[in-house]
Amino acid sequence: VSGGEFDLIRMLKGQLAQRHGDVLLGIGDDAAILRNGTCVTCDLLVEDVHFRRATTSLHDLGWKALAVNLSDLAAMGARPILAVVGLGLPPDLAEAGVVELYAGLDECAATYGLDVAGGDVVRAPVLTLSVTAIGRWDWMALRSGAAPGNRLAVTGPLGASRAGLAILEGRATGDDALVERHRRPQPRVAEGHALAGMASAMMDISDGLASDVVRLAEASRMTCVIDLDLVPVADGVESVARQLGELPTRFAAAGGEDYELLVAIPEQAIARARAPLLVVGHVTAGEPGRVIFTGEGSDDPPRGFDHLDQV
Amino acid sequence: VSGGEFDLIRMLKGQLAQRHGDVLLGIGDDAAILRNGTCVTCDLLVEDVHFRRATTSLHDLGWKALAVNLSDLAAMGARPILAVVGLGLPPDLAEAGVVELYAGLDECAATYGLDVAGGDVVRAPVLTLSVTAIGRWDWMALRSGAAPGNRLAVTGPLGASRAGLAILEGRATGDDALVERHRRPQPRVAEGHALAGMASAMMDISDGLASDVVRLAEASRMTCVIDLDLVPVADGVESVARQLGELPTRFAAAGGEDYELLVAIPEQAIARARAPLLVVGHVTAGEPGRVIFTGEGSDDPPRGFDHLDQV
Repeated sequence: VSGGEFDLIRMLKGQLAQRHGDVLLGIGDDAAILRNGTCVTCDLLVEDVHFRRATTSLHDLGWKALAVNLSDLAAMGARPILAVVGLGLPPDLAEAGVVELYAGLDECAATYGLDVAGGDVVRAPVLTLSVTAIGRWDWMALRSGAAPGNRLAVTGPLGASRAGLAILEGRATGDDALVERHRRPQPRVAEGHALAGMASAMMDISDGLASDVVRLAEASRMTCVIDLDLVPVADGVESVARQLGELPTRFAAAGGEDYELLVAIPEQAIARARAPLLVVGHVTAGEPGRVIFTGEGSDDPPRGFDHLDQV
Repeated sequence: VSGGEFDLIRMLKGQLAQRHGDVLLGIGDDAAILRNGTCVTCDLLVEDVHFRRATTSLHDLGWKALAVNLSDLAAMGARPILAVVGLGLPPDLAEAGVVELYAGLDECAATYGLDVAGGDVVRAPVLTLSVTAIGRWDWMALRSGAAPGNRLAVTGPLGASRAGLAILEGRATGDDALVERHRRPQPRVAEGHALAGMASAMMDISDGLASDVVRLAEASRMTCVIDLDLVPVADGVESVARQLGELPTRFAAAGGEDYELLVAIPEQAIARARAPLLVVGHVTAGEPGRVIFTGEGSDDPPRGFDHLDQV
């Protein structure tokens, strides 16, 4: 969600009561959490806001709609069990299209070992998908636990999805693997589960490291320092960034839809982590919610991707 | 969902694999069910398909969007814990409108003792609500368990919501309480929980007894017999039905959005049930999926309400 909607959620958070003893965490993090080990996350995808049918195949849309939700579960450390899908069908979408969409959903579900349950199928003016993913947590990590001295690290190199989008849109040339990373994001479910027990804070990078780290800093009421020189750049991204006249590390830090995880973690825990971790900065007890960029490009700090403005 | 979409769900049901051992029941009933006692249901509500902002206040819309989901949980015998809401906002909906919508959601949540967690807030061409309700079951009832000799019974008199809609639309005059029943449906959560342990089959009446009993007959592969003379008519409905030139029992049997429960239950269990039960028919081992109407009006059997055609 973008800035304006994020403020709205904060306002609603104040308005909504927490009343059921089985709910550990409601609004505000990547997912809601129940005491019985259940974790729930929900995304609404709307045609011409989040995707265009002209440029996204229905199969890819199905994959991505589910993958994005699984990434939210991964961000809490939960492993997926079930996805419930609500589908709003426009008049011009034939039954074959629905089958293709579900085939994409089911391919992603098979890859990550969960079930898909149809929830509701209704009419709508544009193709609308609501995906709710249910997972189970053994231990969990929130956005709000970062502590002074923690390292900030990511689970993999960044920028591939953004580079893939540039290639898809004809703004650059490059490897098909980058396009594939954009079309079929791979949520870090196993990594999230492994890291949840040792990370102080965790979230997924959906809007780009540069934006998402602000949310972690806000939720944890800490200052986060990102050294742009340390930002790991995915294979093939450097060439695409250069074609677009951008510094590769800065390009990667602003790249949305990578769906790697961002963790704040004690330095001594990094070596024991059963997931790859690439350090990009650290946490300090400075001004709450502030992010400081250092290194090359920090004089013009990168800005993240805003889903709502990128159609 | 209407007939066409119901067929689509059946087709998808064949396509989707059941692979996670924690999922007891996926697509097809009122809700999906997990082995750990969790029950999940999802509805997508789209402006100008399911409601119009000109005739439904945002507060009522919030209440109803959640109530409908709670009714699906009630139909399985589950008690609600949490609702996760995805919201698609059109450009012309001001922030105050969102607050009003959430106030309605939260009033319903308070009445039934659950939490509301915001999930996702996005842009959309028309107001779009996705509500996923999570509940817990101790025991459950499916649509598919009806057995020959079972009585068919409902948890309360019918037709109030349909009569309320006719009053709202100026097609009849009548009691404000009927309008209230249309605007603020009261899902039978406690009744569902009490009946789940003793009913052979259970579902909620969202599209009208006359349509929904067909689904129960299909899922159970039985013939259901409904005696229209036994259909209980809610207070004040008779006068509205007469104004519209309809037989009150037939009007009530075709009345959508009452959200009472329909159960198939052994006759000897009815007296022990800790919920009101009004017998309307019985189950026989006839042609699977067939419904036979008897009594006055059965020469022209009532048809249920189709959400998709009633805007």
